[in-house]
Amino acid sequence: MIRALMAGPEGVREVEPASLGEVLRQLAGDQPLGRGGTGGPFLWVDLDAPTGEEWELLTGVFRFHPLAVEDCQSFTELPKLDVYPDYLFIVLHQVEPAGTRRVRRDELDVFLGPRYLVTVHVDPVEVVGKQWERERQGKGALAQGADMLFHALADALVDQYIPVLEGLQDRLEEMITGLLDESPHPRLPRVTLAIRRQLLRLRHSLEPQREVFARLAQRSTPFVSERAREYLRDVHDHSDRLVGLLALNRELVTYAVDLYLALGNNRMNAIVQRLTIVTTIFMPLTLITGIYGMNFRFMPELEHPYGYPAVLALIAALGIGLYLYFWRRGWLEPVPIPPRRRRPDRGPESRHPPLPPGEASRGRAGGPPSGPRTDG
Amino acid sequence: MIRALMAGPEGVREVEPASLGEVLRQLAGDQPLGRGGTGGPFLWVDLDAPTGEEWELLTGVFRFHPLAVEDCQSFTELPKLDVYPDYLFIVLHQVEPAGTRRVRRDELDVFLGPRYLVTVHVDPVEVVGKQWERERQGKGALAQGADMLFHALADALVDQYIPVLEGLQDRLEEMITGLLDESPHPRLPRVTLAIRRQLLRLRHSLEPQREVFARLAQRSTPFVSERAREYLRDVHDHSDRLVGLLALNRELVTYAVDLYLALGNNRMNAIVQRLTIVTTIFMPLTLITGIYGMNFRFMPELEHPYGYPAVLALIAALGIGLYLYFWRRGWLEPVPIPPRRRRPDRGPESRHPPLPPGEASRGRAGGPPSGPRTDG
Amino acid sequence: MIRALMAGPEGVREVEPASLGEVLRQLAGDQPLGRGGTGGPFLWVDLDAPTGEEWELLTGVFRFHPLAVEDCQSFTELPKLDVYPDYLFIVLHQVEPAGTRRVRRDELDVFLGPRYLVTVHVDPVEVVGKQWERERQGKGALAQGADMLFHALADALVDQYIPVLEGLQDRLEEMITGLLDESPHPRLPRVTLAIRRQLLRLRHSLEPQREVFARLAQRSTPFVSERAREYLRDVHDHSDRLVGLLALNRELVTYAVDLYLALGNNRMNAIVQRLTIVTTIFMPLTLITGIYGMNFRFMPELEHPYGYPAVLALIAALGIGLYLYFWRRGWLEPVPIPPRRRRPDRGPESRHPPLPPGEASRGRAGGPPSGPRTDG
Amino acid sequence: MIRALMAGPEGVREVEPASLGEVLRQLAGDQPLGRGGTGGPFLWVDLDAPTGEEWELLTGVFRFHPLAVEDCQSFTELPKLDVYPDYLFIVLHQVEPAGTRRVRRDELDVFLGPRYLVTVHVDPVEVVGKQWERERQGKGALAQGADMLFHALADALVDQYIPVLEGLQDRLEEMITGLLDESPHPRLPRVTLAIRRQLLRLRHSLEPQREVFARLAQRSTPFVSERAREYLRDVHDHSDRLVGLLALNRELVTYAVDLYLALGNNRMNAIVQRLTIVTTIFMPLTLITGIYGMNFRFMPELEHPYGYPAVLALIAALGIGLYLYFWRRGWLEPVPIPPRRRRPDRGPESRHPPLPPGEASRGRAGGPPSGPRTDG
Amino acid sequence: MIRALMAGPEGVREVEPASLGEVLRQLAGDQPLGRGGTGGPFLWVDLDAPTGEEWELLTGVFRFHPLAVEDCQSFTELPKLDVYPDYLFIVLHQVEPAGTRRVRRDELDVFLGPRYLVTVHVDPVEVVGKQWERERQGKGALAQGADMLFHALADALVDQYIPVLEGLQDRLEEMITGLLDESPHPRLPRVTLAIRRQLLRLRHSLEPQREVFARLAQRSTPFVSERAREYLRDVHDHSDRLVGLLALNRELVTYAVDLYLALGNNRMNAIVQRLTIVTTIFMPLTLITGIYGMNFRFMPELEHPYGYPAVLALIAALGIGLYLYFWRRGWLEPVPIPPRRRRPDRGPESRHPPLPPGEASRGRAGGPPSGPRTDG
Ligand SMILES: [Mg+2]
Ligand SMILES: [Mg+2]
Ligand SMILES: [Mg+2]
Ligand SMILES: [Mg+2]
Ligand SMILES: [Mg+2]
Ligand SMILES: [Mg+2]
Ligand SMILES: [Mg+2]
Ligand SMILES: [Mg+2]
Ligand SMILES: [Mg+2]
Ligand SMILES: [Mg+2]
Ligand SMILES: [Mg+2]
Ligand SMILES: [Mg+2]
Ligand SMILES: [Mg+2]
Ligand SMILES: [Mg+2]
Ligand SMILES: [Mg+2]
Ligand SMILES: [Mg+2]
Ligand SMILES: [Mg+2]
Ligand SMILES: [Mg+2]
Ligand SMILES: [Mg+2]
Ligand SMILES: [Mg+2]
Ligand SMILES: [Mg+2]
Ligand SMILES: [Mg+2]
Ligand SMILES: [Mg+2]
Ligand SMILES: [Mg+2]
Ligand SMILES: [Mg+2]
Ligand SMILES: [Mg+2]
Ligand SMILES: [Mg+2]
Ligand SMILES: [Mg+2]
Ligand SMILES: [Mg+2]
Ligand SMILES: [Mg+2]
Ligand SMILES: [Mg+2]
Repeated sequence: MIRALMAGPEGVREVEPASLGEVLRQLAGDQPLGRGGTGGPFLWVDLDAPTGEEWELLTGVFRFHPLAVEDCQSFTELPKLDVYPDYLFIVLHQVEPAGTRRVRRDELDVFLGPRYLVTVHVDPVEVVGKQWERERQGKGALAQGADMLFHALADALVDQYIPVLEGLQDRLEEMITGLLDESPHPRLPRVTLAIRRQLLRLRHSLEPQREVFARLAQRSTPFVSERAREYLRDVHDHSDRLVGLLALNRELVTYAVDLYLALGNNRMNAIVQRLTIVTTIFMPLTLITGIYGMNFRFMPELEHPYGYPAVLALIAALGIGLYLYFWRRGWLEPVPIPPRRRRPDRGPESRHPPLPPGEASRGRAGGPPSGPRTDG
Repeated sequence: MIRALMAGPEGVREVEPASLGEVLRQLAGDQPLGRGGTGGPFLWVDLDAPTGEEWELLTGVFRFHPLAVEDCQSFTELPKLDVYPDYLFIVLHQVEPAGTRRVRRDELDVFLGPRYLVTVHVDPVEVVGKQWERERQGKGALAQGADMLFHALADALVDQYIPVLEGLQDRLEEMITGLLDESPHPRLPRVTLAIRRQLLRLRHSLEPQREVFARLAQRSTPFVSERAREYLRDVHDHSDRLVGLLALNRELVTYAVDLYLALGNNRMNAIVQRLTIVTTIFMPLTLITGIYGMNFRFMPELEHPYGYPAVLALIAALGIGLYLYFWRRGWLEPVPIPPRRRRPDRGPESRHPPLPPGEASRGRAGGPPSGPRTDG
Repeated sequence: MIRALMAGPEGVREVEPASLGEVLRQLAGDQPLGRGGTGGPFLWVDLDAPTGEEWELLTGVFRFHPLAVEDCQSFTELPKLDVYPDYLFIVLHQVEPAGTRRVRRDELDVFLGPRYLVTVHVDPVEVVGKQWERERQGKGALAQGADMLFHALADALVDQYIPVLEGLQDRLEEMITGLLDESPHPRLPRVTLAIRRQLLRLRHSLEPQREVFARLAQRSTPFVSERAREYLRDVHDHSDRLVGLLALNRELVTYAVDLYLALGNNRMNAIVQRLTIVTTIFMPLTLITGIYGMNFRFMPELEHPYGYPAVLALIAALGIGLYLYFWRRGWLEPVPIPPRRRRPDRGPESRHPPLPPGEASRGRAGGPPSGPRTDG
Repeated sequence: MIRALMAGPEGVREVEPASLGEVLRQLAGDQPLGRGGTGGPFLWVDLDAPTGEEWELLTGVFRFHPLAVEDCQSFTELPKLDVYPDYLFIVLHQVEPAGTRRVRRDELDVFLGPRYLVTVHVDPVEVVGKQWERERQGKGALAQGADMLFHALADALVDQYIPVLEGLQDRLEEMITGLLDESPHPRLPRVTLAIRRQLLRLRHSLEPQREVFARLAQRSTPFVSERAREYLRDVHDHSDRLVGLLALNRELVTYAVDLYLALGNNRMNAIVQRLTIVTTIFMPLTLITGIYGMNFRFMPELEHPYGYPAVLALIAALGIGLYLYFWRRGWLEPVPIPPRRRRPDRGPESRHPPLPPGEASRGRAGGPPSGPRTDG
Repeated sequence: MIRALMAGPEGVREVEPASLGEVLRQLAGDQPLGRGGTGGPFLWVDLDAPTGEEWELLTGVFRFHPLAVEDCQSFTELPKLDVYPDYLFIVLHQVEPAGTRRVRRDELDVFLGPRYLVTVHVDPVEVVGKQWERERQGKGALAQGADMLFHALADALVDQYIPVLEGLQDRLEEMITGLLDESPHPRLPRVTLAIRRQLLRLRHSLEPQREVFARLAQRSTPFVSERAREYLRDVHDHSDRLVGLLALNRELVTYAVDLYLALGNNRMNAIVQRLTIVTTIFMPLTLITGIYGMNFRFMPELEHPYGYPAVLALIAALGIGLYLYFWRRGWLEPVPIPPRRRRPDRGPESRHPPLPPGEASRGRAGGPPSGPRTDG
């Protein structure tokens, strides 16, 4: 589907896709094509899951480079910024949670020219839909320039990562809280591996995307006005924070797994200790009974009237003595409750409720003054 | 074997190796040697497993530097780009899978001059053969310049890495899926070591190769036209993605091995726990039977008519009591099914079928719009 | 709450918030706005947990960029320095211990203009309060320039990190001292995980903050005079040291956990060894008693008058022999005292008193010549 | 020992050490001292384990800087390049295998002037001896310039590292092949530690040496002609490959040790499982026999004619039932063959023969076209 | 204590602290203050543990920056170089061993001006004392310039690190040698943690100190003549080597601990194997004796005259058979000698004598030609 909007001082109007060639010529002729215009009007064309013919618009009318169009058609693994003489070509990734431990990445391709912005996406991209509504109602950013519209889209798209990352972090903090409270979460190793894989994939998208915004924010790229650059610096700040959060989460995973193993070793130590105590106490006692169970004809103890009580007393004394020995040596500490045991208990009344959104969720931008910020 | 093609506006024709000296002089005299010509005609010479005499062509006719020719003759461990005054010398590596866990690396050496491209390879290089066919049929890139032909070869050669890397990743994901589903793949440690070794070797080829394309795509190298540079930027993008995939796979290996060890520790814990339970329950019972198996003459219990049932009841009560004690302490959780056991089951109805080509295979360039892209 | 001070050669006076617009115009008109003035007077405005209306001062009177004001309103995860044409916008973090293993981070936002400094903070910031008192008494730095006042605040704020980091390090050293003394602290794994998490979060604040001071100290930023730059170099030195301390502490955590695991393995080895000794000694002895407990009619040993003492002697000899065998093989080393055991002992007479503030606390700046500096 | 050669268009002649001062003056006066001469003649002076007096030549006749001479006299840990106004001072390291797991590093110091090369070495350096022979027979590089002679020495010296590194890698691959074939080499941990130590030391020499060649190959250093620079680029390529091989080998060591530990854990799991099976099967059976070994007067089963066969059948049924239970639970997998066991078998018919020189040895430079290059 | 020396062409003379102001004025007026003078005379002032009044010299007479003086007064964690318009301020650290595993770091602060050097130290600094003696006897470096005196002090101070680092390395090599010889040092984990902590702290001093010398050696800093710069390059070489040694030692620690754990696991495997063998052999035998110890009336075997010898033979055959089974399966390998056992043996006749100073000690600078350099 192709749809187009034009916005300028006189307001917003929809443009017929068929007339886009004509409109482009007018835009070019209207006034000298300054780089990052201030006058307007500005054009936004959105290609939503374009069909075979609709792809023609990019090559035929806009005359974009075939390699850029090819990048629009297939999933481009790494976000990037390519500078062409007449436009910028920018590949961005959006994320959405898909289930509890999975993440869905979609691509948004953008051509940013002096007076127009072309967005291309094979799958639906939420931020495009919302911004389109805003522009149609005249509350958008297009009237301030194609670059300001690009900022609005990029800002919303980067903000989408925050709840996804915070969801993963909450799951992780839940694990770690369990570890620190001496009740390690039963499925910790598997959950952390799953989270780690997601973090790896998010990094795959986020690090090159941060570089795209770094270049747009710091260096003098064509088609981006000084004013938009200041706004894109803010998007870069957020990308930077996201990459930092990723790194923090990856380190937390490592530590949590290390700690889980250490606690597992402690438990193993305690169990084997218990086994050793039992064996060491009972084997000598059993030997004594074995001795007096032998069938020798001449065993004077057996004939003695106090033989039996004496041996019973010996067994009791030895057993208690060995027990006290272990007690004094400190071997009798309780074995920690095995973590796996509690698995059937999970469900509605789980002892591992999701953490209230912690420190991570306090970073949301643009809100009112936030409450206290204590790190845990 | 030496073979040569000439392509230009007038079409394609094969050239006799013997007349190459003459052709080269004509090319040089035809018109001033612009760097990265547009006019044509252009020459492609391919040396396929050259014999002793055929090597002479490089030193005698083309007068290439002896060190470059030496690099053609032996396997050059690291891809590279050397800039000589009259030509570029470029070493690239191609890969092919050789068996299920092995990879074969071959070298393709390229001399890129203003109007000619010379390719040298000791072993057969698939992309050269295919491109040669395309050129002969006049559907190739040579007519657009020697640099555009170089791009065509480099693009195909880099794309060859994708299925190889994805094959390794599929094998790895199969392992990890097993871990996450609680049925770790029996040979995981060995398979991951083998994959890790391949990844190390691929990195050996891929990282310097990416640097070669980065230099060709970003800086102004002679003999590469602005147009070819834009296309080589695309090859650099793909190389970058491959290096990223390598890093991702290496981290996945680390995590999988860590998780395997953690699960092995959990299983050990459960087994030792079981052993401790059995020992702790039976040792006291055996002691009781030992006591009443002693042969003392005066043991009043033995004479009592209810002595035997009383002791049997004591044994039963103690056994059940200890069992309940362990049950209440949560020690009775099931031991995880041992991973090794399932090895004989593998084969046609294996529980570890190869994953359907997952996310990784979605990145293939240049295809039609791809389906949903959910990361797992 | 908004409050304002003006300081110059003539002394200090408080300014009504309502008249700030007027004052700003005077400052601008008074004399050409040199960058980093020397003449004075200078203005300090402090917004402490501003209400909705009070935020207006920033946008309406000072006309700061809306993105900078937005950053003031929410928690900004990473300290930063943004250069605007008419002022610097600087985000800093202060820390305070919040409980024994937790840290609270608060944000201080600063606008540094040619003749004014505006500080904004949603939560109370200790160093601002103290400096305000000092300025009011005329003992402050404002009279020497807005940049010198900024230095005074930054210096105090960075110094606040030292006791926090040293507190964490002391806790860590206590753990390590226990490990080196063969009495590992019982809760070591959990405590180190908690410390590690704090260190990660402090790094989140400290590394970008160091970069802010590096830029202010090394490069020529507007609104900072050469004199203030020399002082800010000192703040950068301290930030550098803090980042180094962080790295040192993170490595100490890793080593301590590794060592804890190694000692745990040693203990496990010793326990299993003990179990093996007991089993290996008693099983053969029990077998012997079992043999002579069999009820065969024809067992000549049973009839022999010295049968019983001979078998007793055999049992004793075999038991002692096996014991001596293990003793000679070195298997009889004592099992290390289990660490967990001592947990109830902790409290007033704990064997793990907090270390006297060690080397780390000797680095405090500006004090008198310190005593000997031996690293432990 | 001091010896000197002079080579030029007119051929080669030996020079008396005593006349070196005179010769140097002639060289200087002969024609203007171009940097990296082309005309010749050129002088090579070699100091082989110089005595106290012979050191005087460097300070007295050549007037080299005292710090450079000091560096010649003691072992200089890190190769380096110092640029003095009248000459380059270059420290290189050669290696030789010294036993199976040890490596010997020796130092070669070089002064490269416009028309002379001075080599200094305390220990014999193989490549100097060989090159001296070649020069004396007029087949050397000195006649083409002092810088070309330096290249010849450096090239041979760097090539010496290849067999040493490949020897270590072969030993390592032997270990890893054993691991992948399920028969881990018994001494793997110790051998890999020894290899790791050698790799660390080789890196100590190789990384700074690569930097020396990078500077000589890439930047414009005095006393090195453009032609020699092209040749030194080849030496840098080889150094780069060596550093890459080092890194690859270090990662292989890490993986091999990780895998060894994982396989050890698997084996431990299997052994403990076996122990648990035996204990769980026999303890209940022994309890039954204990019960019927008790001496109560009234035990009706004992009187029953089929009591004994019934209990025997019960014991058999319970034993077999427990065995089948474990079999069905998959606990009966074979314990992997213990690695240590095979140690006495080593020697002439060892199952761990050295690998045929694998991929690593295929990289040797300058040979004839190599065979297939399959990575394993 | 304040003391001062003046050296120049006319010789050396001591200067009264009280007259330092006068002397400074003379030095400044004597001749234009070239940067890094050649003419002399030059002044050296040493403040050794200055008292409150003596600090006044720095601020009052020399007019050094208050921040620099503050840095002199407290321990400055990181060595650094601050360039002030009229002098350089340099903070260096010296080390001394303090006990067997501890290191003491002291600070030496230096002000280097055009014609003077001021050294400040709160604790005694050995190299200052020795150099002072040398200067007083006219054998020093002051007469050649303040920068040459600075080199002499820096060179000696850096050389002090070598024995300290080598002491730690010797201790480490002793551990590793034990590991490679199959007799791991009993206290290895604790000793390596202690060494690791020292290495961390030394790195804290050494890395920034190297950067100080890198800046002095490579860039054009004021107050350092070209001649002194060449000498400082040598100090930088040594610092570089020290940092490399630190890294090497840190990696050795990691490897040694990894190997220790691997050997511990091997030993555990062997012990548990032994336990399993004993249990598996004796449990069936005990069951047999239990069967024939039952008191059934009708047990035909018991009546048979050869019943007893037959069962004895069965027991022997089964025991030997199981033993042979384990022997053939390779389970009977010897358990490695437990490392802890040998602890009482340590002392005069310890099996772990300190290594003869190994490779590390061969690097000492400036000595006579060293012997063979084989790395182990
Ligand atoms: Mg795409
Ligand atoms: Mg945003
Ligand atoms: Mg950035
Ligand atoms: Mg912001
Ligand atoms: Mg955080
Ligand atoms: Mg925002
Ligand atoms: Mg080659
Ligand atoms: Mg491609
Ligand atoms: Mg790149
Ligand atoms: Mg592309
Ligand atoms: Mg992916
Ligand atoms: Mg493509
Ligand atoms: Mg904020
Ligand atoms: Mg401070
Ligand atoms: Mg810095
Ligand atoms: Mg300071
Ligand atoms: Mg410290
Ligand atoms: Mg200070
Ligand atoms: Mg030397
Ligand atoms: Mg070579
Ligand atoms: Mg290089
Ligand atoms: Mg080569
Ligand atoms: Mg590790
Ligand atoms: Mg290789
Ligand atoms: Mg070569
Ligand atoms: Mg100090
Ligand atoms: Mg020195
Ligand atoms: Mg350096
Ligand atoms: Mg030196
Ligand atoms: Mg060394
Ligand atoms: Mg020296």
